[in-house]
Amino acid sequence: MALLDKVSLPEDLKRLSRNDLPAFARELRSEIIRVCSLTGGHLASSLGAVELTVALHYLLDARRDRIVWDVGHQTYGHKILTGRRHLLDTIRKPGGLAGFTATSESEYDALTVGHASTSLAAALGMALARDARGDDYDIAAVIGDGALTGGMALAALNQIGHVKPRLLIVLNDNEMSISENVGALNHYMGHLQVQRWFQKAETRSKEALSGIWEPLADLGSRAKKAARRFFDPASANPFHAMGVRYVGPVDGHDVIELLYLLEHIRKLDGPTMLHIVTTKGKGYGIAEADPILWHGATGFDLDNPVQAGKSYQWSDAFGEAAIRLAEADDRIWVITPAMREGSGLVEYSQCHPERYIDVGIAEDVAVTVGAGLALRGEKPIVAIYSTFLQRGYDQVIHDVSMENLDVIFAIDRAGLVGGDGATHQGIYDMAFLRILPHFSVAMPRDVLELRSMLKKALLIGGPVAVRWPRGGTERAPDLPVDAWLDLEWGSWEVLKEGEDAYLLCIGPTVEYGLEAVQGNPRVGVVNARFVKPLDESLLLSLASRAKVLITAEDHAVAGGLGSAVAEVLQDAASPVRLIRLGVPNMTVPHGDVKAQHEDFGFGPRALRDRIEELGLGVAPTAQEADRATQPVH
Amino acid sequence: MALLDKVSLPEDLKRLSRNDLPAFARELRSEIIRVCSLTGGHLASSLGAVELTVALHYLLDARRDRIVWDVGHQTYGHKILTGRRHLLDTIRKPGGLAGFTATSESEYDALTVGHASTSLAAALGMALARDARGDDYDIAAVIGDGALTGGMALAALNQIGHVKPRLLIVLNDNEMSISENVGALNHYMGHLQVQRWFQKAETRSKEALSGIWEPLADLGSRAKKAARRFFDPASANPFHAMGVRYVGPVDGHDVIELLYLLEHIRKLDGPTMLHIVTTKGKGYGIAEADPILWHGATGFDLDNPVQAGKSYQWSDAFGEAAIRLAEADDRIWVITPAMREGSGLVEYSQCHPERYIDVGIAEDVAVTVGAGLALRGEKPIVAIYSTFLQRGYDQVIHDVSMENLDVIFAIDRAGLVGGDGATHQGIYDMAFLRILPHFSVAMPRDVLELRSMLKKALLIGGPVAVRWPRGGTERAPDLPVDAWLDLEWGSWEVLKEGEDAYLLCIGPTVEYGLEAVQGNPRVGVVNARFVKPLDESLLLSLASRAKVLITAEDHAVAGGLGSAVAEVLQDAASPVRLIRLGVPNMTVPHGDVKAQHEDFGFGPRALRDRIEELGLGVAPTAQEADRATQPVH
Repeated sequence: MALLDKVSLPEDLKRLSRNDLPAFARELRSEIIRVCSLTGGHLASSLGAVELTVALHYLLDARRDRIVWDVGHQTYGHKILTGRRHLLDTIRKPGGLAGFTATSESEYDALTVGHASTSLAAALGMALARDARGDDYDIAAVIGDGALTGGMALAALNQIGHVKPRLLIVLNDNEMSISENVGALNHYMGHLQVQRWFQKAETRSKEALSGIWEPLADLGSRAKKAARRFFDPASANPFHAMGVRYVGPVDGHDVIELLYLLEHIRKLDGPTMLHIVTTKGKGYGIAEADPILWHGATGFDLDNPVQAGKSYQWSDAFGEAAIRLAEADDRIWVITPAMREGSGLVEYSQCHPERYIDVGIAEDVAVTVGAGLALRGEKPIVAIYSTFLQRGYDQVIHDVSMENLDVIFAIDRAGLVGGDGATHQGIYDMAFLRILPHFSVAMPRDVLELRSMLKKALLIGGPVAVRWPRGGTERAPDLPVDAWLDLEWGSWEVLKEGEDAYLLCIGPTVEYGLEAVQGNPRVGVVNARFVKPLDESLLLSLASRAKVLITAEDHAVAGGLGSAVAEVLQDAASPVRLIRLGVPNMTVPHGDVKAQHEDFGFGPRALRDRIEELGLGVAPTAQEADRATQPVH
Repeated sequence: MALLDKVSLPEDLKRLSRNDLPAFARELRSEIIRVCSLTGGHLASSLGAVELTVALHYLLDARRDRIVWDVGHQTYGHKILTGRRHLLDTIRKPGGLAGFTATSESEYDALTVGHASTSLAAALGMALARDARGDDYDIAAVIGDGALTGGMALAALNQIGHVKPRLLIVLNDNEMSISENVGALNHYMGHLQVQRWFQKAETRSKEALSGIWEPLADLGSRAKKAARRFFDPASANPFHAMGVRYVGPVDGHDVIELLYLLEHIRKLDGPTMLHIVTTKGKGYGIAEADPILWHGATGFDLDNPVQAGKSYQWSDAFGEAAIRLAEADDRIWVITPAMREGSGLVEYSQCHPERYIDVGIAEDVAVTVGAGLALRGEKPIVAIYSTFLQRGYDQVIHDVSMENLDVIFAIDRAGLVGGDGATHQGIYDMAFLRILPHFSVAMPRDVLELRSMLKKALLIGGPVAVRWPRGGTERAPDLPVDAWLDLEWGSWEVLKEGEDAYLLCIGPTVEYGLEAVQGNPRVGVVNARFVKPLDESLLLSLASRAKVLITAEDHAVAGGLGSAVAEVLQDAASPVRLIRLGVPNMTVPHGDVKAQHEDFGFGPRALRDRIEELGLGVAPTAQEADRATQPVH
């Protein structure tokens, strides 16, 4: 690490000679692998962007210029070069660096990000601001081929081609986002690569340097050679059609070549797209060979690098349930917006490829394809993370809810998500779905309830949201669909009676509640598994016999279960006291989920403390008193 | 109307000879103009689609085949041809036909719609369902050039080019959606037109019929001629790059030519886009000359056709305020997603063109361009309808709220919207915004408050939503920004004290409340103009001295003002009785807004009745008793 140790800020990098940059890039790559082996993280994406990162920071002044990284998961190299190397082993950990870029973390981070496809619109806004103020700093947006399939990116590109601000767009094309990419544009990019990549320079030189390429005629001989090789004539390319100058494709792992090209195109008027081809996981053989597995790596042993098998996940349980449902009913489809692995759908996609649809990073399209299927009598399941469902909200309203179509939303990562942090918290879905007509909104306590809710959703019809948290759960025996639990739609379940009070819990807080009131006869626990329809008769019956009701939910405290309960109690003029616990109205950073649950007052210890404070506790047994002195996690 | 009178259903149309179709189209056009002169409606779009409508219904069986009209505002001809001619004068009126297609209205309507850019994703879903069932019916999606700038449409097109189902996409290109279109693709389409439209057939014939165009080589001589003229070679076109066969552009007002082409391409494998060029308002000179004015026409006199000047609208008040603000502060920008006219921004766009951005039909881009501007210290105002803000929800969360950026959302058409109906109701925004961190959410009672809220929003900072209803309001004197009302942020205002109860009103319900309690000392009225921050101290003070509080809002009753109040009262264990009035959990069809407000219990009469029922009324005066016997509208 002879070179890397000399560089802690971009100005240090600029002091290296160009000839040192390939070696520097190798060291940077090794450092990323080393850190990821300790901490886990977005290994493969960051390895793919090493040379680009070096070239951009060598050329630009990232404090004054703006580098807008789309998604922000490819930025471990960027973080190392911008004063954060010593903190990199804290990445995604509580109190540590964020897994993505974040303006609150560094002046070198131009955009706080985590969701895909936002960079181009944000960069357009920045460019408009720059030009209005008469400034001349550079703005570079770096977007992957996957993120470019998102409609928002395409629409922003269309707008950029119209407004034509000076803007550098680097298309980082590794033919793969998290899952394998889908979409015709992606085929097209492959076609561009095959067509141009191996083509003799001479055949295109004339057209490449004529017409709109005049600015390039002034370049030096090396750039001319690059231009002859890589510049694409106006008519042959959809990016041109959208009004954006297209350059490429070039080898994204040749840092010298990248630097040379960037140097010559960055001051061109108007928007320029540089199409670079990279290998995800570049430089780390096993990650290159299986970049999907190594996309978000867990920590690993450098000498014996294997990705630890995860414990049994909620996603696995959903994927298995979907397979069984699709076997039992040939109208079942599963739709994913580019989240096959994360949503537990690898096996489903193999068992039922004819009723599996990956629409790419286009959540709005996922929802409305579901609507189209449902209109023809099919039974689509849109499998989506809570945070990404926000991107299809209008389609949920306009295309599904309003029409009362039979679409099931299988919502993964509901609640706080841990390492992915602020951008990925899934804490609004119950609030924004329960206000829509025809919708049912439910959250299972365990896999048996999950299955039952999916099965009954198909019978009940209409739009149904079933949500579950990120993380592990207990496996349940594989049973045929007929033998799955038969749950009454909209019913709550009293798990434990209480003399004075009840905890109304949902999803993960059910176990918290049971733990908190163990041995306490005064406080009962209810599995409030449906937010809509809400079990009003049980609720009002509890309200009539209890002094206090406490809702506990891993969701924004405004708008969710607690608010739904408050509405019912107010409408019934119930005098019962209601205490609503949930995620407060704030941006919640990455952290340990269970610790955050305790901090926000609905973890098991916090619940027990609250019960004590309310004078509803019991004297702890010796065993409990002992346990209470142990640390939280 | 000799021909039109013979046709009430598509099967009648099919009995006409092809040679009759041009004359039939003329009659259909006249009928649309006649009906719109009586009722108002989407005149210009429907006139532009007359020949396409005739050709599609002549060729397809719209009960079995699926014609998916994007937006659905161009479908007056479609409605006339599918058994609804006798009802067309009820269009957009209470209980009458919807202004768009609606599956609940007719088996000939394939999709319920109103928002742009959904047709391609829905058609893809339908095509997948068809092919899975082994059916062979045709699916045709008709999308305008404006709607195609929406990211969702572009992403769906990308997916269609990947999946390659048999699907006919008609790109109805009138170079104009509601406002003039923006976006580079639109320039490109213009370029296609100029390039191809007037080009000699011969120059392109070879390439046009070679390669992927082989299926067309079998066509008859007329189609060959058309193909020679119109078919575009593979490499020259972004639609090709996206994997969609492209045909065009052709004259969309030549019904015979359209029919001939459709006949030959509809059975081609895979997706085919037919690019037709039409004139918005075609056949009605004044509408052709000013299609923006005549997009959504009011009724008019056929002999003296002028569009009635509208009364002073909330939109006008906003547009004027934006001009004054932008004069006073050069960091102010206004961003619109293709709604310059509807949002009252025509004059603003002329006064401050350098700080006016129309991003096309791309609400997500509008929000994130705003974020990009705010990150560079500008003060963007995103002017957007409530119903369309749903399309940028994730961007509001991920790019603005989470980051606490200074972006103002100027939300027009908040509440029920009347004729536009179900798809356009703006009844969820307070619920889905107030749950987000850093957000303020406010609704003015009048223009003075509107100005004040916008002005103070700039001082307060962070994301602020200010919402107002569709429709007229009272003009206020033009004053410099310095002289605008200085409103305390988050403050409510007691407009009338009450002995026993208070109405907590917001926006239009403030006047309703005042009217309902006129002469009634027992019930007070509060202008609850901020939902967030909510004036908790005033609320709790009212709760402590009143027996009953009644919230009244033109918004979904779940999640809005009433829920926010319920939360505060429950948290404070207040014993006051709360009654929440608002829009129930249902799909609300088009109708008369004031009548719907009464039906839903928060119009002035309904409020008065409710107060009586609660035993809080006073004996009516003779004058009031007299008024009470008059009809509602």
